Amino acid sequence: MTYRIGVIGGGQLARMMVPPAVHLGIEISVLAEAEGSSARLAATQVGDYHDAETVLRFAKDVHAVTFDHEHVPQDVLRALVDAGVEVHPSPEALFVAQDKIVMRERLTALGLPVPAWATVRGRDDLAAFLAEHGGRAVVKTPRGGYDGKGVRVVRSADGADDWFAALGAAGASDALLVEELVEFRRELAQLVARRPSGEIAAWPLVETVQRDGVCAEVTAPAPDADDALSDEARRIATVVAEQVGVTGVLAVELFETTDGRLLVNELAMRPHNTGHWSIDGAVTSQFEQHLRAVLDLPLGDTSPHRAWSVMVNVLGGPAQGTMADRLPALMADQPGAKVHDYGKDPRPGRKVGHVTTTGPDLEDARGRARAAVRFFED
Amino acid sequence: MTYRIGVIGGGQLARMMVPPAVHLGIEISVLAEAEGSSARLAATQVGDYHDAETVLRFAKDVHAVTFDHEHVPQDVLRALVDAGVEVHPSPEALFVAQDKIVMRERLTALGLPVPAWATVRGRDDLAAFLAEHGGRAVVKTPRGGYDGKGVRVVRSADGADDWFAALGAAGASDALLVEELVEFRRELAQLVARRPSGEIAAWPLVETVQRDGVCAEVTAPAPDADDALSDEARRIATVVAEQVGVTGVLAVELFETTDGRLLVNELAMRPHNTGHWSIDGAVTSQFEQHLRAVLDLPLGDTSPHRAWSVMVNVLGGPAQGTMADRLPALMADQPGAKVHDYGKDPRPGRKVGHVTTTGPDLEDARGRARAAVRFFED
Repeated sequence: MTYRIGVIGGGQLARMMVPPAVHLGIEISVLAEAEGSSARLAATQVGDYHDAETVLRFAKDVHAVTFDHEHVPQDVLRALVDAGVEVHPSPEALFVAQDKIVMRERLTALGLPVPAWATVRGRDDLAAFLAEHGGRAVVKTPRGGYDGKGVRVVRSADGADDWFAALGAAGASDALLVEELVEFRRELAQLVARRPSGEIAAWPLVETVQRDGVCAEVTAPAPDADDALSDEARRIATVVAEQVGVTGVLAVELFETTDGRLLVNELAMRPHNTGHWSIDGAVTSQFEQHLRAVLDLPLGDTSPHRAWSVMVNVLGGPAQGTMADRLPALMADQPGAKVHDYGKDPRPGRKVGHVTTTGPDLEDARGRARAAVRFFED
Repeated sequence: MTYRIGVIGGGQLARMMVPPAVHLGIEISVLAEAEGSSARLAATQVGDYHDAETVLRFAKDVHAVTFDHEHVPQDVLRALVDAGVEVHPSPEALFVAQDKIVMRERLTALGLPVPAWATVRGRDDLAAFLAEHGGRAVVKTPRGGYDGKGVRVVRSADGADDWFAALGAAGASDALLVEELVEFRRELAQLVARRPSGEIAAWPLVETVQRDGVCAEVTAPAPDADDALSDEARRIATVVAEQVGVTGVLAVELFETTDGRLLVNELAMRPHNTGHWSIDGAVTSQFEQHLRAVLDLPLGDTSPHRAWSVMVNVLGGPAQGTMADRLPALMADQPGAKVHDYGKDPRPGRKVGHVTTTGPDLEDARGRARAAVRFFED
């Protein structure tokens, strides 16, 4: 037999599943939203993932279906399961990642540390929450947000009026999520992978720097993370993976508060930007591990190659021309930089690529990664 | 712009160029010999590389053409160059790799150390060579050999009668190559990459173990290789690359004689089995470097990730079923093994995959790689 995997969504996460599939001899096919997607090399079909017929046709001959994103509707996911398709992560698990209120409810029920939160339906609710939390809060739309979209800091009860007005519309939620604005020392991420049969493997805890709500830089492992912190991060991710029944890669984004506690910020049930360093920096990358996990194959060694890996995102890309235009100068300057170009058109703020460096010295690796990425900025 | 590269030949070397192309944002297309080739994911055309029309059509929109093998006829290569296509390595360089007599002449003219050799056209020539070299010699057909095919040890003047009988036929050579049977301590390989503009990068010297004329195992770096030996290997490869004008990866297979000298055994002008360890074991793999070199992009850091890398070939593969059938047991036993399945049907002696391990301890890494490959043998 040959393992065959189907990926719904043609973005860079699907694209980066292609190299490990090639190496492991796994046949990979992608259902892309449009021609010319980032994962076009493996796109065997272009179609709408909201349409169950389309998705069922795509999934006909694969051993497992997985995802580039978390936006496939529950009824489509259920149709796949009803047709006997292995879907990883499962609809039940994905439901927890698809709705931030469901996620907060679930994490709270599991006894995991989260920021103070509430559901709010209008100005009065929001005013009450603000009064209790120092006059500042983070409001989030429960569904469809990513990379800082659907997230807003508010300091007055009228700060979310436009979102309140949209509540209850077709496909929209009937409430917003409001959370305390956490005073954090830094942001961290813990990635693990879990197989349907239960095995779990974890990468080292990493530090992430967000800029305008978008991941900008990741350092692996997180500097100055003692065993207690690392163990707590791994415990949290393991509880989520096991209790929610996540299969494939699970990313848990965390705040390290100024008083040294960990709070869960967000969950993602797929390879995640904070794990891209592992392509060049670990024995088993998050993309290879995701393929192994969703096919229920034993998981690989997650050890880093070198003491430090630093990943810097290319956000926007060159104002003129393409990333490729800058390669000669970048490569001449930074021979150790691992460049990843997602094959997407540059556009302000868009994630179009990343660069990873590894080495024995953190400042050196970080300096080289940042220097490399500057070649893609104008 | 986007870099576009065309690879002639759909074997595993073309297949393994796909992952770095995906990461670097290089559009890769492959002219495969048949449907279902190892590089099928990137095969945009199926056709005969002996046909200039076919190859010209394939090469129409790429920035450079390179190769999975060295068998493209000179007239086809010339037609590409005449049409203005960048061909790397060039027809002139490839000519030296395509004919073992031309290669021996060229290496000798460059003053590089080679085994004693002669051209022979019949029994009398061979008898004379045998008399001078202790009654034993290696006879090689100048063209078309690979993996031990077209190579034979002879101990009597009639040992190559069948090959002599075929001399002068259409497409065949008019002489055979005969070489002394070198008393060697071990076999080594030095890989370098060279850009058209002249830059050269070298990987560490590696030790190779051949079985029945086929590469079976590679250790990187070569154990107990002192600076003098490593420097001499690098000097030889650099002279060949520069003087023959090789572009892309050049592999120089070497004998380390029992009295400590290096002699050039074979040349290959493409990624080579003795460099497969670099996919998992070095900052820049031979496949990424080959793409960079043939596109005249600056070359990458060739440093190894860990002290040792060991690559073991999967020769033949399982007697029943596929490599994929064995993955669950292998992965459970060897979580650090990097498995490469070329997507080819198992067949006795055929190279169908390889496994690489890395680590701080050579015996441990070697043991793990060998243990992993045993899962693919019956």
